[in-house]
Amino acid sequence: MIQQQRPLAPSELILGGGFWGDFQELNRSAIIPHCLHWVEHVGWVGNFEAVTAGEPFQHAGTEFADSEIYKLLEAMAWELRRRPDDTLATQYADLVARVAAAQDPDGYLHTSFGHQGQRPRYSDLEWGHELYCFGHLFQAAAAAVRAGIVSDLPRVATALADHVYAEFGPDGRSDVCGHPEIELALVELHRATGRPQLLELARCFIERRGHGSLGQIEFGAEYFQDDVPVREAGTLRGHAVRALYLAAGAVDVAVETGDQELLSACVRQWESAVSRRTYVTGGMGSRHLDEAFGEDFELPPDRAYAETCAAIASVMLSWRLLLATGKERYADLIERTLYNSVISSPRADGRAFYYVNTLHQRVAGTAPAEDRPSVRALADLRAPWFEVSCCPPNVARTLANLGVYFASVSEDTLHLHQYADFTVDTTLGSGASVNLQVSTGYPDGATVSVVLRGALDAASSVALRIPSWARGRAVLSTGAVIGPDDETVTVAGPLPAGHEVVLHLPMLPRVTRPHPRIDAVRGQVALERGPFVLAVEDVDLPAGVTVNDIAIDPSHIRPSGQGARVGVVVNGASPGGHGTPSSDEGVTPRLVPTQTFATYQPYYRWANRGPSTMRVWTPEAHPAAAPGPSSRPGA
Amino acid sequence: MIQQQRPLAPSELILGGGFWGDFQELNRSAIIPHCLHWVEHVGWVGNFEAVTAGEPFQHAGTEFADSEIYKLLEAMAWELRRRPDDTLATQYADLVARVAAAQDPDGYLHTSFGHQGQRPRYSDLEWGHELYCFGHLFQAAAAAVRAGIVSDLPRVATALADHVYAEFGPDGRSDVCGHPEIELALVELHRATGRPQLLELARCFIERRGHGSLGQIEFGAEYFQDDVPVREAGTLRGHAVRALYLAAGAVDVAVETGDQELLSACVRQWESAVSRRTYVTGGMGSRHLDEAFGEDFELPPDRAYAETCAAIASVMLSWRLLLATGKERYADLIERTLYNSVISSPRADGRAFYYVNTLHQRVAGTAPAEDRPSVRALADLRAPWFEVSCCPPNVARTLANLGVYFASVSEDTLHLHQYADFTVDTTLGSGASVNLQVSTGYPDGATVSVVLRGALDAASSVALRIPSWARGRAVLSTGAVIGPDDETVTVAGPLPAGHEVVLHLPMLPRVTRPHPRIDAVRGQVALERGPFVLAVEDVDLPAGVTVNDIAIDPSHIRPSGQGARVGVVVNGASPGGHGTPSSDEGVTPRLVPTQTFATYQPYYRWANRGPSTMRVWTPEAHPAAAPGPSSRPGA
Repeated sequence: MIQQQRPLAPSELILGGGFWGDFQELNRSAIIPHCLHWVEHVGWVGNFEAVTAGEPFQHAGTEFADSEIYKLLEAMAWELRRRPDDTLATQYADLVARVAAAQDPDGYLHTSFGHQGQRPRYSDLEWGHELYCFGHLFQAAAAAVRAGIVSDLPRVATALADHVYAEFGPDGRSDVCGHPEIELALVELHRATGRPQLLELARCFIERRGHGSLGQIEFGAEYFQDDVPVREAGTLRGHAVRALYLAAGAVDVAVETGDQELLSACVRQWESAVSRRTYVTGGMGSRHLDEAFGEDFELPPDRAYAETCAAIASVMLSWRLLLATGKERYADLIERTLYNSVISSPRADGRAFYYVNTLHQRVAGTAPAEDRPSVRALADLRAPWFEVSCCPPNVARTLANLGVYFASVSEDTLHLHQYADFTVDTTLGSGASVNLQVSTGYPDGATVSVVLRGALDAASSVALRIPSWARGRAVLSTGAVIGPDDETVTVAGPLPAGHEVVLHLPMLPRVTRPHPRIDAVRGQVALERGPFVLAVEDVDLPAGVTVNDIAIDPSHIRPSGQGARVGVVVNGASPGGHGTPSSDEGVTPRLVPTQTFATYQPYYRWANRGPSTMRVWTPEAHPAAAPGPSSRPGA
Repeated sequence: MIQQQRPLAPSELILGGGFWGDFQELNRSAIIPHCLHWVEHVGWVGNFEAVTAGEPFQHAGTEFADSEIYKLLEAMAWELRRRPDDTLATQYADLVARVAAAQDPDGYLHTSFGHQGQRPRYSDLEWGHELYCFGHLFQAAAAAVRAGIVSDLPRVATALADHVYAEFGPDGRSDVCGHPEIELALVELHRATGRPQLLELARCFIERRGHGSLGQIEFGAEYFQDDVPVREAGTLRGHAVRALYLAAGAVDVAVETGDQELLSACVRQWESAVSRRTYVTGGMGSRHLDEAFGEDFELPPDRAYAETCAAIASVMLSWRLLLATGKERYADLIERTLYNSVISSPRADGRAFYYVNTLHQRVAGTAPAEDRPSVRALADLRAPWFEVSCCPPNVARTLANLGVYFASVSEDTLHLHQYADFTVDTTLGSGASVNLQVSTGYPDGATVSVVLRGALDAASSVALRIPSWARGRAVLSTGAVIGPDDETVTVAGPLPAGHEVVLHLPMLPRVTRPHPRIDAVRGQVALERGPFVLAVEDVDLPAGVTVNDIAIDPSHIRPSGQGARVGVVVNGASPGGHGTPSSDEGVTPRLVPTQTFATYQPYYRWANRGPSTMRVWTPEAHPAAAPGPSSRPGA
């Protein structure tokens, strides 16, 4: 074990109301019931019953439809732990029973392969998603154990894992699944059940990948990270969700096996991808075609794919690296991603979702039908369900267990990583107890109060993360200003019960300029405020103006609501020529700049007021960029 | 008929050597033989033999593999007219015979549908490409007639067309093909054979589209232009090749039926798409995912799809609009597209091709295997063949008949649209003869000489197109400067045989700035010279510098070879933080600017010297864009 910190058990951190508490309530009251409705409605639960019945049947949905039920079971387990409820418990038990009944006698459990009229087991490792689905079942089972839910699922998962070990273990076939996920899931199930062979199997899958065992596909071996072994790769690449789940599994294996080289490889890949291949929202994966990262600094806002599941996988990876290394830089990215790429997915009512999280909507989208799955993972309005519907239940399981990301403990310190209203009652590695309450209006409020509910002994500390954007400007209740390089401020014992520490954070809007290598947003700025990235929608612009028409005056920005009121120049540009828009064939746009104001709101809330255009990055109004002919014959 | 000009027959314009003559020789000696080899090698000709044999067989290639043979037959017909040759004639006759033998008794001819073990005819109009393939057969047959080649193909095509008329004509099923193409092909075959029902059928297909008769697909009805009727649409949208072939067919129908409203719709769509959805290279179609245009001003250089076939289809559409309206703006786009998006496809040796014509290669591509088709239509190095290999034979048929785009005639005028070494001997609408010779070093040379080989009578003229980039700076041999608004300069009779007119064109490099609405290239410039768009490759930069590292100093540009020698600033930027590249989490790139020079070459020649990075648009070095922190906490 090379882990610096351990996560808290669900019983050790109790999240109250407020910003995130409200999201958990939305998850309970809307998102989970919505997903439960849809997995029945589209026949994905029915697939299990059809397998149980033993007759040939028309399989509903994609090859990975099973996994959506498993993610939902994981969400329900966390939710049952958070707030027990008979109705939910009955739904959970019923769903587990229907899944369990479809398990083959040898432990295999998948509704798309291996039964009468279906393709044989493991006959399409590139696209079949069998082991991927197993992984989500393992995660659901591990969640049941950790949440203390009495369920048949751990037994089902263990029997399946034994089958997988026999097929793919050290003495089995030397293959991997086209979609990583089973690796991290095996380690989670290993931790929950203590079975060493699960860790061994996870290690096999990590080591095997990158040697070209998967077949040639249109998108290249990079798509499923089969191009370079995990410990040799320099960055995250290919399909973003696959890359991030794989790296998360690799960290798990590295931590459990004490493999410092493998951990360093994951740190290196994270650093490279985060500093060169990540949107300001935390979104990852630039390309629609193959849902891939793309090259360094290829970060188009209008064609951002930034899949919701990639954001969730990024949080999972960063959290594992935080625990392994103790560095708060990972919590910085978790915060950025949760506030700007995870909760941008659900609609305000929790009954429709973004799969893609674009940073620039040029044309107001259309509303997908509410009564059937969307065939398109595009940036129209949020859709109630998708033919590939990985994102909604992934949001559900993330929100249901969100508190896990807020704090952790090391030998002598309780580490507070995210701020919300919550209590912690835990034991440090040293055996000392820490019991405290965090109260805050964050992200709207500018203060975080930490009150000790029990004494903190002389050898113990509480470490508060200073968000990266607040360093050098945050102030402690003692009057101390947090230094610009300080990731944390540490409150050391001995301190009596009732002692309060208040952290004051700078909550004014701030202007962010892009890295100069990002061609796609050169000359544009983004606005951020607290943990929020802001965006403008045309509904917050004068009538008839779209977000494509404006430039921003960064000298006129003041706070407004959760966002900012900003001076903008409206450019009435329209092309007048017959040539290409960048040729010198007579295009002389008529630019009639007028000055006005726009309201920028937190990005995650966009598209909740009907179809609109939207942008995160806005061109900067600038004397040097003044209106003029678009082109001019040169030397 | 509402056509202003008529095209010349192959016998009326003889293209000599020089820039385009060399390309035609490359086509003859390399591209056509290369394609002939591959359609045999991958079994696509074999499909016809298998159908003829009448036994169930494993079909090779995609559902539209037949069309590649038809495009190749079209290329061979033009080539046999250009320079007769026994070997080529034998190959042609052999290929025609093998195709013809596969025709069903009722005229149907397709190797993917309708035979034993295959799906029924017309059971997959969305993706099956049956009518699309027929269209290419019709074009090949029309080419045989126009080129005067004795062949069985017109008979085969006519029998097939009769079958299609019975199935899809006014009394048949009211359906269209997912991929437009048959519309323009029916009009071509109608013109070649005089059969009125072919025009009627073309009109049916044009009018039917846009009413949602095709099934729902992931990319939406816009993908195959089934969202809005042709005469109501405001712009070109969806899959670029489909949109352009459809519009070309619509112009053909409009011209033949005197439908001014339909023609106006096509003009409107062309104007909108060209001024808002077209790359400086003439490339069309920004998106990889669905090969689609994308939204207005969505023109990312690094993810430009800009398919070779879309460029060819754009030339076909512009040519039809030129003939219909007499406007030289269409010749401007034809020139831009031929020089910068069509001939960028073939490698210098004519044995490998770009499918995608990117404007920015961030990372040096890898060389695809030379002995098997590429599965990827990506911007690595050019590939010898593709699993979807529409582009290579499309290049072949375009080059073989390239002279058609160079001149046309109206009632009293011979119009010269493109410049090369060629002779024209034709008859105007009035009945008057024109016989002349064009001699030029164009595009390298700056002069175009037109010498009358026969007298030009008093009622006749020769009109020379002034390229849009030359207007206001071109000079005639008389000393007259061509005005900035003059599309043409007209040389009016009477003039004696031997009279010479010389046009002097300004051939210095020029700087082009993008339309201010194109976010993706804000702050960047392109260089153009004559008809060429220029690009820089890292092989023309100091060792170790990639095109991602440079900014351009537009004040230091001088001509060099066919390109330019340009002052550039090399920025050694590297990210130093752990945050996203655009967040304020400590990214402070170290920018160490150094001054040097780079050679920009015509874009079409890139990637002929091994893997390289390349860019067309280059950031402009600018005091206001000086090195500094990438981001700074704001107000």
